[in-house]
Amino acid sequence: MRVSDIQPVLLLGPGPSPVRERILKAMAHDTVGHLDPQFLTIMDEVNEGLRVLFGTRNRMTFPVSATGSAGMQASLVNVLEPGDTAIIGVNGVFGTRLAEMARRIGCEVVTVEAEWGRIIPPDDVIDAHKAHPDARVVALVHAETSTGVRQPLGEVGAALRGNATLFVVDAVTSLGGIPVDVDDNGIDVCYSGTQKCLGVPPGLAPITFSEKAMARIDSRTTPPQSWYLDVSLIAGYLGEERRYHHTAPINSVYALHEGLVIIEEEGLDACFRRHEEVGAALQNAMVERGFSLFAQEGHRLPQLTSVELPDGREEGPLRKALLEDHHIEVGGGLGPGKGKMWRIGLMGAGANHRSVERLLAAVDAVLPTG
Amino acid sequence: MRVSDIQPVLLLGPGPSPVRERILKAMAHDTVGHLDPQFLTIMDEVNEGLRVLFGTRNRMTFPVSATGSAGMQASLVNVLEPGDTAIIGVNGVFGTRLAEMARRIGCEVVTVEAEWGRIIPPDDVIDAHKAHPDARVVALVHAETSTGVRQPLGEVGAALRGNATLFVVDAVTSLGGIPVDVDDNGIDVCYSGTQKCLGVPPGLAPITFSEKAMARIDSRTTPPQSWYLDVSLIAGYLGEERRYHHTAPINSVYALHEGLVIIEEEGLDACFRRHEEVGAALQNAMVERGFSLFAQEGHRLPQLTSVELPDGREEGPLRKALLEDHHIEVGGGLGPGKGKMWRIGLMGAGANHRSVERLLAAVDAVLPTG
Repeated sequence: MRVSDIQPVLLLGPGPSPVRERILKAMAHDTVGHLDPQFLTIMDEVNEGLRVLFGTRNRMTFPVSATGSAGMQASLVNVLEPGDTAIIGVNGVFGTRLAEMARRIGCEVVTVEAEWGRIIPPDDVIDAHKAHPDARVVALVHAETSTGVRQPLGEVGAALRGNATLFVVDAVTSLGGIPVDVDDNGIDVCYSGTQKCLGVPPGLAPITFSEKAMARIDSRTTPPQSWYLDVSLIAGYLGEERRYHHTAPINSVYALHEGLVIIEEEGLDACFRRHEEVGAALQNAMVERGFSLFAQEGHRLPQLTSVELPDGREEGPLRKALLEDHHIEVGGGLGPGKGKMWRIGLMGAGANHRSVERLLAAVDAVLPTG
Repeated sequence: MRVSDIQPVLLLGPGPSPVRERILKAMAHDTVGHLDPQFLTIMDEVNEGLRVLFGTRNRMTFPVSATGSAGMQASLVNVLEPGDTAIIGVNGVFGTRLAEMARRIGCEVVTVEAEWGRIIPPDDVIDAHKAHPDARVVALVHAETSTGVRQPLGEVGAALRGNATLFVVDAVTSLGGIPVDVDDNGIDVCYSGTQKCLGVPPGLAPITFSEKAMARIDSRTTPPQSWYLDVSLIAGYLGEERRYHHTAPINSVYALHEGLVIIEEEGLDACFRRHEEVGAALQNAMVERGFSLFAQEGHRLPQLTSVELPDGREEGPLRKALLEDHHIEVGGGLGPGKGKMWRIGLMGAGANHRSVERLLAAVDAVLPTG
């Protein structure tokens, strides 16, 4: 097979999202060196663009040279040491993964659990912190891609302010789709991926560390086990010294740069509004068709919608028909949603009414109603 | 700045190497999902192409979703556990890095050292293994990018055969440029990068694990600290089950696929011969110009040449002139070569006589002789 044989698919799953032609073109620009002054300018601009998106003034804001899950890994491995306590909210796949990563680091993990599809009540998190005031981190998933739940962050962030505990937030599916407001929400470490609401191919994990997080890292008694993800070493490349650490994935950074330019052109607020409107339109239309929304009312993400199929229909064959006959990708359910749910993403360049219309026409074709 | 403003540079440093138009075009193909059957076919073909390049039948052969240094990390973190002994050859930056990573895992590191620019005598490695027969790994760097030294592998591989110790080899700068012969050399874990002799943009780390290595991984008493690089989890995505682990960097895999097609078209032996001939031509021409070759005679890589400048000249300003006035990138020296050496790469699409001619003309312009 040749890459050019790959037929285009409308990407309305949980990611990757559709990538604009302009971004693909930027990605295909001539590769230059990772220490070339031209590339260093691009990298500096990417970091500045990410600060705007994250809503932060954090100096240490950059794309990790790997995909979103490596952002999760980088967050935890830099701030946690074996023996530390980590309080982690678990109400889906990604909270479960955070807990697993923290355990592998050798931490005492305290989970604060909620049913899949429901938020973690902020008071439960705050209570867990009162019970474990020496916890090194409290970690929450802002946009749970496995369920479509939007986790409130402000109350927990406010409760942790002025405290030694760091607030870690997974913004893989939220960054660029809904406000993350790192500084306003008192978040210390926040990571994302490029292939969701930024509409950039997968391969990089934007991340940001507050000064409080960096001070904690400076006071570690052991180096992070991961040399590749060690933010103290990466700082040497990003800073004045431009010290070689690893070869940055040049063309992926080009693509992210163009993606950030596009968001800047649209305006971040307009971008959030677009995700909000299109997501609401889809959710209403799916309910009209007899699908039920899985995420708790009042806490639904616009950019990622989990729906249960009508009449207990099996989701697999219908999802396959969407892909094969209509060239539209949606995701299957995970955990309790396995076999009976779809996860529909309207993210980045996919978040528009044409996507919704194409999807609804295809849904009506594979699942005729009445 | 816009990405399109970046002026092309002839990449003759230690990587990234020049990327062919065909590869950039493949990279810019429409992104599809990481579970799309079309992409899974591309991924399977990439893994098969990598087996040919590595010279192996290892089932677990795939590109790690991050750059070459993450390949190093993935190798060690999967096979080593805290308390294990690791014998590591150190004669440059990358051996030093291997030792550092192994220490961070909590291993007892036994270094076998040689002067930078010289090989590690195989007998020294074999002796170290005799002194530490329970060592979990012996690790060597095949192509030391910091010095241009080509490390012999066969004797050490033969000595370790039938033994519980695993042979780990860094082939970041060798894969595709000189034979690695994983199976013939008795190598158990071998990793590389795409941005050297494969001529593909940085972002992926091809890696291979022997059955012996996989058996060792299966018998671990603790999971690898890195969830992202855990090969047992990645196997679930690469195997029949196609279990979601992380989102593969789709477009980077496209680029690697096209790079492997190009090597297949040329033929691997022809590709090695081209690197060999062009490297020798450069080395002769540099010596004629009064430069001295840093790597030990008889053990010089054709694809990466370290040269000391004539008459004790300072390298920095001249390297800057090559870049600014002639749009050619070469690398500066590291370690003992800092300030007085260049590292010249003739790798992948850069390994041709036109590159050598352009470089020599520029060298003659910035450093007139006679």
